[in-house]
Amino acid sequence: MKNSYAVVVIGGGIIGCSIAYYLAKGNIDVAVFEENQVGTKATSAAAGMLGAHSECEGDVDVFFPFARKSQFAYEKLKDELYELSGIDFGYRKGGILKLVLSEQDKQGLKAILAQPTVSWLATEEVKKLERDVSPHLLGAAYIEDDVNVLPIGVCQAFAKSAQILGASILESTKVLTVEKQNNIFLLQTTRGVVEAKHVVVASGVWSSTFFRQLGLDHQMTPVKGECISVMGEKAVLKHTLFHDKYYVVPRNNGQLVIGATMKENDWTDKVSLNGIETLIAKAKMMLPTIADMKLDSAWSGLRPQTFDQNPFIGYHPEDEGILFATGHYRNGILLAPATGQMITDLILKREVKKEWVEAFRIDRRKPLTV
Amino acid sequence: MKNSYAVVVIGGGIIGCSIAYYLAKGNIDVAVFEENQVGTKATSAAAGMLGAHSECEGDVDVFFPFARKSQFAYEKLKDELYELSGIDFGYRKGGILKLVLSEQDKQGLKAILAQPTVSWLATEEVKKLERDVSPHLLGAAYIEDDVNVLPIGVCQAFAKSAQILGASILESTKVLTVEKQNNIFLLQTTRGVVEAKHVVVASGVWSSTFFRQLGLDHQMTPVKGECISVMGEKAVLKHTLFHDKYYVVPRNNGQLVIGATMKENDWTDKVSLNGIETLIAKAKMMLPTIADMKLDSAWSGLRPQTFDQNPFIGYHPEDEGILFATGHYRNGILLAPATGQMITDLILKREVKKEWVEAFRIDRRKPLTV
Amino acid sequence: MKNSYAVVVIGGGIIGCSIAYYLAKGNIDVAVFEENQVGTKATSAAAGMLGAHSECEGDVDVFFPFARKSQFAYEKLKDELYELSGIDFGYRKGGILKLVLSEQDKQGLKAILAQPTVSWLATEEVKKLERDVSPHLLGAAYIEDDVNVLPIGVCQAFAKSAQILGASILESTKVLTVEKQNNIFLLQTTRGVVEAKHVVVASGVWSSTFFRQLGLDHQMTPVKGECISVMGEKAVLKHTLFHDKYYVVPRNNGQLVIGATMKENDWTDKVSLNGIETLIAKAKMMLPTIADMKLDSAWSGLRPQTFDQNPFIGYHPEDEGILFATGHYRNGILLAPATGQMITDLILKREVKKEWVEAFRIDRRKPLTV
Amino acid sequence: MKNSYAVVVIGGGIIGCSIAYYLAKGNIDVAVFEENQVGTKATSAAAGMLGAHSECEGDVDVFFPFARKSQFAYEKLKDELYELSGIDFGYRKGGILKLVLSEQDKQGLKAILAQPTVSWLATEEVKKLERDVSPHLLGAAYIEDDVNVLPIGVCQAFAKSAQILGASILESTKVLTVEKQNNIFLLQTTRGVVEAKHVVVASGVWSSTFFRQLGLDHQMTPVKGECISVMGEKAVLKHTLFHDKYYVVPRNNGQLVIGATMKENDWTDKVSLNGIETLIAKAKMMLPTIADMKLDSAWSGLRPQTFDQNPFIGYHPEDEGILFATGHYRNGILLAPATGQMITDLILKREVKKEWVEAFRIDRRKPLTV
Repeated sequence: MKNSYAVVVIGGGIIGCSIAYYLAKGNIDVAVFEENQVGTKATSAAAGMLGAHSECEGDVDVFFPFARKSQFAYEKLKDELYELSGIDFGYRKGGILKLVLSEQDKQGLKAILAQPTVSWLATEEVKKLERDVSPHLLGAAYIEDDVNVLPIGVCQAFAKSAQILGASILESTKVLTVEKQNNIFLLQTTRGVVEAKHVVVASGVWSSTFFRQLGLDHQMTPVKGECISVMGEKAVLKHTLFHDKYYVVPRNNGQLVIGATMKENDWTDKVSLNGIETLIAKAKMMLPTIADMKLDSAWSGLRPQTFDQNPFIGYHPEDEGILFATGHYRNGILLAPATGQMITDLILKREVKKEWVEAFRIDRRKPLTV
Repeated sequence: MKNSYAVVVIGGGIIGCSIAYYLAKGNIDVAVFEENQVGTKATSAAAGMLGAHSECEGDVDVFFPFARKSQFAYEKLKDELYELSGIDFGYRKGGILKLVLSEQDKQGLKAILAQPTVSWLATEEVKKLERDVSPHLLGAAYIEDDVNVLPIGVCQAFAKSAQILGASILESTKVLTVEKQNNIFLLQTTRGVVEAKHVVVASGVWSSTFFRQLGLDHQMTPVKGECISVMGEKAVLKHTLFHDKYYVVPRNNGQLVIGATMKENDWTDKVSLNGIETLIAKAKMMLPTIADMKLDSAWSGLRPQTFDQNPFIGYHPEDEGILFATGHYRNGILLAPATGQMITDLILKREVKKEWVEAFRIDRRKPLTV
Repeated sequence: MKNSYAVVVIGGGIIGCSIAYYLAKGNIDVAVFEENQVGTKATSAAAGMLGAHSECEGDVDVFFPFARKSQFAYEKLKDELYELSGIDFGYRKGGILKLVLSEQDKQGLKAILAQPTVSWLATEEVKKLERDVSPHLLGAAYIEDDVNVLPIGVCQAFAKSAQILGASILESTKVLTVEKQNNIFLLQTTRGVVEAKHVVVASGVWSSTFFRQLGLDHQMTPVKGECISVMGEKAVLKHTLFHDKYYVVPRNNGQLVIGATMKENDWTDKVSLNGIETLIAKAKMMLPTIADMKLDSAWSGLRPQTFDQNPFIGYHPEDEGILFATGHYRNGILLAPATGQMITDLILKREVKKEWVEAFRIDRRKPLTV
Repeated sequence: MKNSYAVVVIGGGIIGCSIAYYLAKGNIDVAVFEENQVGTKATSAAAGMLGAHSECEGDVDVFFPFARKSQFAYEKLKDELYELSGIDFGYRKGGILKLVLSEQDKQGLKAILAQPTVSWLATEEVKKLERDVSPHLLGAAYIEDDVNVLPIGVCQAFAKSAQILGASILESTKVLTVEKQNNIFLLQTTRGVVEAKHVVVASGVWSSTFFRQLGLDHQMTPVKGECISVMGEKAVLKHTLFHDKYYVVPRNNGQLVIGATMKENDWTDKVSLNGIETLIAKAKMMLPTIADMKLDSAWSGLRPQTFDQNPFIGYHPEDEGILFATGHYRNGILLAPATGQMITDLILKREVKKEWVEAFRIDRRKPLTV
């Protein structure tokens, strides 16, 4: 292990690995320090919907263009990362159907239906796309652009591609403390002390440690999400179904992923029986035939939630040597490419859209309304 | 592989392995032919309650003494098999609480409560034993003798002990056909032809193949049972809870097993979402705090059901060279030792209780009432 | 379950599922009966090299064009099956490098190097493609067309696509016996009796059962193959490495598969320590850096070997109602599409190349030399 | 979660859980904070030999009586913890055979053979105990008292029993910092701030974090150990075999554990191919027939190594509110009960043997010679 890097990223989830990739592409000497294995925590727990639209339910001025940029980036990354790393991250078209099962559901979709890339499908049209959908269906918003990916695949492809471009990925390595001495950061790690010119905190829900050490009092709250998967049987689900923040996502291997519960402040990492009950009930509402399908696996992850549910991306208020890229809540997979790009641009002092800098700065006063 | 044995047992579940053990103990040259691995089908799916009482709900004249004999045998086998094989099969005391949550439940327990070894506990007494039990409890039948074991452990301990005493255990080996020539049985197997003086069919739900080849038209119907397990948290469950054919069984490693659904004629071997829903609902009725516990695993097995739900144990109606030991339905683990002993006694022409021979013979006309 | 089909295929491995797919495409009412789950035996154990060239070491007149036809079919199937089933079977380009580590190795490649699609690479050129390859390398035969796939993905994609086109896939269902009555075949299965106009035996190493029932005395010998996988680290392997019947295959998820031992007449299905020792030694010869990579999983499968190591594809010698498609030995994945097509053509009485009919008929006298 | 405890233990491995158990038994209000799950790191990786003798190769004045005391404690804990927690931790008699395969091996056993509880067995006698042992055997030291346990079972039984006696076990909870304010310790954790009168650092190889925060510059070096297990076949191994720091340990479920490599400064947590090669080679030296047994699983753990390979057990040099119980290297399972007892005695100001206090104090100058 070298003992000096231009940039050290703390955290090897999809955000940290995306940052490493874009920095390595920009010829920056970057290292990622990851306590466990790359992508094994919140990243691998995510379903992988790239829901630029489907996750967006309010104001769409700032968050939405950022999310769309990130979503588009995936299309190119698919080939770019495969070429470098040999890893296929399971980019899957089809789009999302936001199901309407009540009048209230329909009200909730008004903003999204105003988008030019979102279309309204009547019940008959939805049934043509997915014949086994709920008999109580009143229609659906169809968002063809909201494709999905295999999150652990994306993260490993980022990590390996970054390595090939010269980055260091140090797994099973904890960063204990970060201090500044003479304009250089010293990081105590379980493998010894390393120096860095820049430090990026990308530790998801575990970022609070570093907020505190770096003089900030921000909080990250875990919102645990539980998922189960089944092997799809008989008919094939071709589109992601979405209702009331729950979803059924088809994977490239024939699996259907059902997610996800929302358990605030639950730090445990197994799946509870009541979580499973909820997931089964919600999935049956969308796709009644799923009741006969067979359980394949169950898992959970901790979404990192900030005070306004939007990420912190940008400089420390008092030190441009420190950057944050954390708190992506339900949107870590979607926003990973744009986040990696933005952090790289900030470090390389390239231009970054002012409204994004403002919107995602850690010391913002007002919540970003989405 | 030898090509001649005194006895060939077809099927290496807990029944087949018990038979091999008792035959080997009697110095008989026995081989078990098992398609997969020893104990991997219905045996390993069982929860392992030795419910001589709890499974017995009607007439108790024949089945009950047989079951009790088998249950007692376990106490001695525990040390005997450990000594030989080094395998501890997790014999666990504590007993079973048959919970009464309604007047109807109470009616159903009348017969069992008449047994001298069964006692009635008032709600308060039950709560002293298990404080987290349902708030709707009206009392419970307590059967201290109904202990439990780890079924796969029993099966492997039988198999290995049999081997040490000289038996052959041939895994990954299918028996295709059984024919008689000059008073010797010829078995075509995937490893070649073997001869045997006696053949014992102990193939559970897959026994029908051999019924047909051997001139019988009996049917075996699968009754699939699905189970899940959780890691027990906080308080410890010390007794098995039982209600309406469902149960929560504590294991020696701290796990709680929740079982089991009853799906007639379902041959598939995975666990469906609706099965899991049922299990969670039933477990919560007995032990509400289980809702917060974490899923550990899910599995299923096929109970072999005969026309009257009681096993076939004994000779072929027209040929004493062929024996059956199959169709144990919900009671394979409980009855394994007594079945192994009885088949061995029949082969060695030792005395066997006449009422058992009559009750379990494959060509019985009347159902055995239990 | 229906009780009558035009065609019943016995065995739901990649061969049986390919047959079902092509028959369903031809509007034939076909059912597959599979004892376990689709693709869980030899199919899922295979590495998935489509080695039309790399498996071909002698005469190339008959086997090679058949293999090439099958290999080409995969290119089209990739999209065709994804479209229908939503399953991506991991088609992966790169090709195979048959490494030469000794003069003797080089002699062995003469025939293959005569093929126009095979090129000789000097050591330096190989190192440009794969920098971590053995320092003892003398060069390599490079076969760009020998791509690879994920076998279980292919099998499930075939099965699900067949289902969507109308086929029945019956898992957890054993066929016990096949008899002919009045020009109709009656199959006893664990789910009851079914009728069929045609029966196709596609049961791999377990086909002997049916040979015998159908009046043939052919033998199928298992040749067990053991594999391990590691997570590829640091550098990426982009091409399959092959030496002395062993290989290291890169997968789309970043895994490297190391295979495979050859254990004749071993029916067991776990991986032995000596098998692992051999695999590690062979992999280190090809790629020394693999020694530091981490074990991911280990598994095995039984290759079905006929007397001349070539498959039986075609009619029963005395009854065109019965067909065989089994005994594919090391080449089941490669030959699955061509086999499915050929069986379908035979059943539909379409024209089939005479030399293939001759070469693969079950009653051939002379071995097919490959 | 409460926000104040008498004692907070950092680390929920077997050491931390033992401490919690003995403190809870002493009616102390104790909480364990564990980052992951109880017992999932070094604890669950251990084989579980209670090798008071077998690990002892030099001076035996201090370490040996401490180890023996701990070993004896297990005999009583077996029933005591089962009674409370319902968990059976697989205490298994049989003892250890330290095999002698060379003259040099024999020299190395001199000290140990001087112990009254160790006996020398000639080759013939060893073969009577274990018939499949190496043909190159020259004899063995037999230590009947060195029994073994299932480490994860012990740890969970300690944790659950502690809970039942009133302790708090907080999993998925990191302690970030420890500070003293007005004679009270404040711990920042991922679940918020908690207060404690005493803090015990029991974090194994990850303890360095807290050394540093608490003003000490001690180092903990990981010595990674890799293990594999096989299912024991045919003959049964009844005794642990030990040679050259490697061993084959029989488990109560019929498994044989083969361990363990020694990789200094390797923080990764998977098993490398070269590690597996070494384990297989060493196991074959002791028990040649193991080569045909089947791989069951592979895992690794990080032994926490101090400068002299002996643990730190006792007070912080300048603050009796802080205690350490870490650095148990190869002996964490063996020493857990004695360590838990000693820390409890120190906190409760009960008498503790002076030579143990001296030997294990963190600021000892001279290495403890063992």
